[in-house]
Amino acid sequence: MKVFDLAQPMRRGMPQSPNHPAYQHSLVRRHGDMVRAGGGSAANDILVLGTHVGTHVDALAHVSQDGLLHGGVVAADVQSDAGFARLGIDEFPPFAGRGVFLDVAALHGVEVLPPGYEVTAADLEAAAGDLVINAGDAILVGTGWSRRFGEGASFLGTAEGVPGPGEGAAQWIAARGAAVTGAETIAYERIAPGAGHASLPVHRILLVEAGINIVETMMLAGLADAGVREFQFILAPLKLVGATGSPVRPLAVVP
Amino acid sequence: MKVFDLAQPMRRGMPQSPNHPAYQHSLVRRHGDMVRAGGGSAANDILVLGTHVGTHVDALAHVSQDGLLHGGVVAADVQSDAGFARLGIDEFPPFAGRGVFLDVAALHGVEVLPPGYEVTAADLEAAAGDLVINAGDAILVGTGWSRRFGEGASFLGTAEGVPGPGEGAAQWIAARGAAVTGAETIAYERIAPGAGHASLPVHRILLVEAGINIVETMMLAGLADAGVREFQFILAPLKLVGATGSPVRPLAVVP
Amino acid sequence: MKVFDLAQPMRRGMPQSPNHPAYQHSLVRRHGDMVRAGGGSAANDILVLGTHVGTHVDALAHVSQDGLLHGGVVAADVQSDAGFARLGIDEFPPFAGRGVFLDVAALHGVEVLPPGYEVTAADLEAAAGDLVINAGDAILVGTGWSRRFGEGASFLGTAEGVPGPGEGAAQWIAARGAAVTGAETIAYERIAPGAGHASLPVHRILLVEAGINIVETMMLAGLADAGVREFQFILAPLKLVGATGSPVRPLAVVP
Amino acid sequence: MKVFDLAQPMRRGMPQSPNHPAYQHSLVRRHGDMVRAGGGSAANDILVLGTHVGTHVDALAHVSQDGLLHGGVVAADVQSDAGFARLGIDEFPPFAGRGVFLDVAALHGVEVLPPGYEVTAADLEAAAGDLVINAGDAILVGTGWSRRFGEGASFLGTAEGVPGPGEGAAQWIAARGAAVTGAETIAYERIAPGAGHASLPVHRILLVEAGINIVETMMLAGLADAGVREFQFILAPLKLVGATGSPVRPLAVVP
Repeated sequence: MKVFDLAQPMRRGMPQSPNHPAYQHSLVRRHGDMVRAGGGSAANDILVLGTHVGTHVDALAHVSQDGLLHGGVVAADVQSDAGFARLGIDEFPPFAGRGVFLDVAALHGVEVLPPGYEVTAADLEAAAGDLVINAGDAILVGTGWSRRFGEGASFLGTAEGVPGPGEGAAQWIAARGAAVTGAETIAYERIAPGAGHASLPVHRILLVEAGINIVETMMLAGLADAGVREFQFILAPLKLVGATGSPVRPLAVVP
Repeated sequence: MKVFDLAQPMRRGMPQSPNHPAYQHSLVRRHGDMVRAGGGSAANDILVLGTHVGTHVDALAHVSQDGLLHGGVVAADVQSDAGFARLGIDEFPPFAGRGVFLDVAALHGVEVLPPGYEVTAADLEAAAGDLVINAGDAILVGTGWSRRFGEGASFLGTAEGVPGPGEGAAQWIAARGAAVTGAETIAYERIAPGAGHASLPVHRILLVEAGINIVETMMLAGLADAGVREFQFILAPLKLVGATGSPVRPLAVVP
Repeated sequence: MKVFDLAQPMRRGMPQSPNHPAYQHSLVRRHGDMVRAGGGSAANDILVLGTHVGTHVDALAHVSQDGLLHGGVVAADVQSDAGFARLGIDEFPPFAGRGVFLDVAALHGVEVLPPGYEVTAADLEAAAGDLVINAGDAILVGTGWSRRFGEGASFLGTAEGVPGPGEGAAQWIAARGAAVTGAETIAYERIAPGAGHASLPVHRILLVEAGINIVETMMLAGLADAGVREFQFILAPLKLVGATGSPVRPLAVVP
Repeated sequence: MKVFDLAQPMRRGMPQSPNHPAYQHSLVRRHGDMVRAGGGSAANDILVLGTHVGTHVDALAHVSQDGLLHGGVVAADVQSDAGFARLGIDEFPPFAGRGVFLDVAALHGVEVLPPGYEVTAADLEAAAGDLVINAGDAILVGTGWSRRFGEGASFLGTAEGVPGPGEGAAQWIAARGAAVTGAETIAYERIAPGAGHASLPVHRILLVEAGINIVETMMLAGLADAGVREFQFILAPLKLVGATGSPVRPLAVVP
């Protein structure tokens, strides 16, 4: 059995969207600060973070269209200081089912797709090939972009854009009845050079229209390198009541 | 297939140790605060929390004895503003293997063991019965205490104590070669009435001596109610570089 | 010249209202973590806190009545992810004018008024005596309660209540044209035993109706001990754009 | 009487050093989230920030040289999870005394000194002119840089540098016996183009050698525009026990 770790490491200064509170980590108590009579000592930490930093899952409550969340839920009616009474990340049932990896970078014979490249439905169809996709599967889309996580600002693609699924690809995924879908960039979108995150059509299609949760900033290079296309996919976001997302440590388990 | 969710919900005001930064969650942006030209809107959040709040895993770096972490690592040499260079939670390999549930409450014919009850090695032996325990398994110890999570302060057991494994039980678990172990209380310890967390002998045995990570504040009532004793156990803490622990959403998967 | 420090110290675990995010402070970098070539090193910190913890000022935006803030501003129209576009603490002009101290505890010949004691308009009138109060003055009301800050939970008065101005006293202060007013308890209210903060009539009178900012959790024992009744009062809250309050370090300067 | 507000506004995204936790502000509860029986409602916030963001004061504990703080205090002996037991910002006595403004930009006939400009002792001497400087005064150094706060990244001067006092100017200030000193840039230093904050000689001279606290990121354009050179200076940092600094709202009061 092999377990693939599909999360990027979380540390201060990692690339993340400036729209969300930056990840902060500090040791509060270090060993030696307070030693108990018997010689024992405990260290601990404080974390501050947005729910859309690092590898994370978007809750359906994250995006609305014309004031409505998925299923026609009126956003204004369900948001409060307690978060979202409906469609928060706590409503996402932990996933432990079949996952498939559609490696579009490999399809095109590259390690990393170029910035701004739009993944199309035809790309996904071709990457799937003879791999059967069932309703309820998790579909992970490979662009190779996770290999650039260490490059900092350019990973965000503010200037040059990032590769990602276009609207056609999103419709294709929705039509397959995916339980959840994930990719390697900060936003599960194709971002054109210089465009930023001003418009997020794929989020609308998946989260609002289709009710399919999105995993972002995944580390998929390991699956690509091993040529793994099918696996048990584990996605267990924190049970953050009412939150619009959660950091997560997704796994791919191969027998 | 059935997936058991072994995490307690995380929300402001949930019971947690006062030794760690309290869990805070706030919506930063709500729907309607900023609507894009096309009618789309996104909501997001800020989280503040300690790494030992809610259902969580202790890293080996969490506890030291006489200045040493597991394996004789000198704590002072590996702790800094970057967290722990060794034995942080990022060194824990995500677990997706066999888990066993030793239900000590059921053994004694109760739903919840009384506050202050010490789980002994004999208890674990009897609860295991004919269930084989292999080296590398995850061992979860049932006291029923997770049923009291909703009671707030009394869940902490400051006055009356909490049930948990004593030193003998910890030695038994270490001798089985457990990969990881978990329980339902805030501290994986038997806390005597009025004693608080002043002394944590089981943490020393498991984390420092045996190098076995601990999962705390688990929700195990579901396994107890279903009589499940054996399962695929999933434990994928966040990849928090250098942290002494991580909140987590553990799963038990039954075919 | 003598400067009286009118703030309580801020540290983890200090008494504060459970309705607001708890004060957290941690050194992120300690000396020695990263030493520059020349032998220099810098330490820094992270803070997490509500704006109504420790000695603090309430902005007018803090409280609404029937959906309206002071001056009839519709609360829903001015609140967003950017905080309050109107009546946030940034609109409070830093105060450096005349302050008067009305020591009601001294009036009654005690160091600390009993829990639940209601300060009346007659109390304030008597405590003022021949001291002239001008429109635009800052009026500080002494109950002696700040002497109990070190007692922790009982300072909150959850069980026994706290002394403070009643509605009549608030009307008296408003009628004097006070620029700002302050007191020693967590809430500038008389809290009856067992009542908690469920009803805050004085906040309504002062913040919503009269447009007078409130300073809470002040340390006024020094003024009482010195018998100082008149001084230059300095109140310079942080310039937190859009916030409902701010921690502060008020000063009384006596020539 | 006129009160000059010498602080920059604090809001998400304001320019600050990337070495410190970014300023975060969120409304937790908004009006309408929870309305009391009588129609009242309260809003509140959560703040996250470093102690060296926005207009702030450096505590003497902030910088060490060869492991020693001011007065030879061994840094390692006084730092713990409780912060600094010595020389934290809580040891700074709130200042309400004479302040002088030495406007070096005006001296050179410009509104803003160029990036990378080194303020010299001769500059300060000339800017003071016939203004007497007494031991115990607060000395504020004007470069005009606060006018550029709204420009974001260029305010930091990462590429082009920032103007500020050089070592000679710092020695001059120390020799005058200043109680405290302040300036308009993020670091009270002259930063050469491209140099960043790798070396902080002025911090060493003032904080470690002379024991003089530093105020940074001040808004001094108002004093410059009004031609005010002498005033009552108020500096009342938050009473953050053990912290290496504090955000602050400094005031200049002119009779």
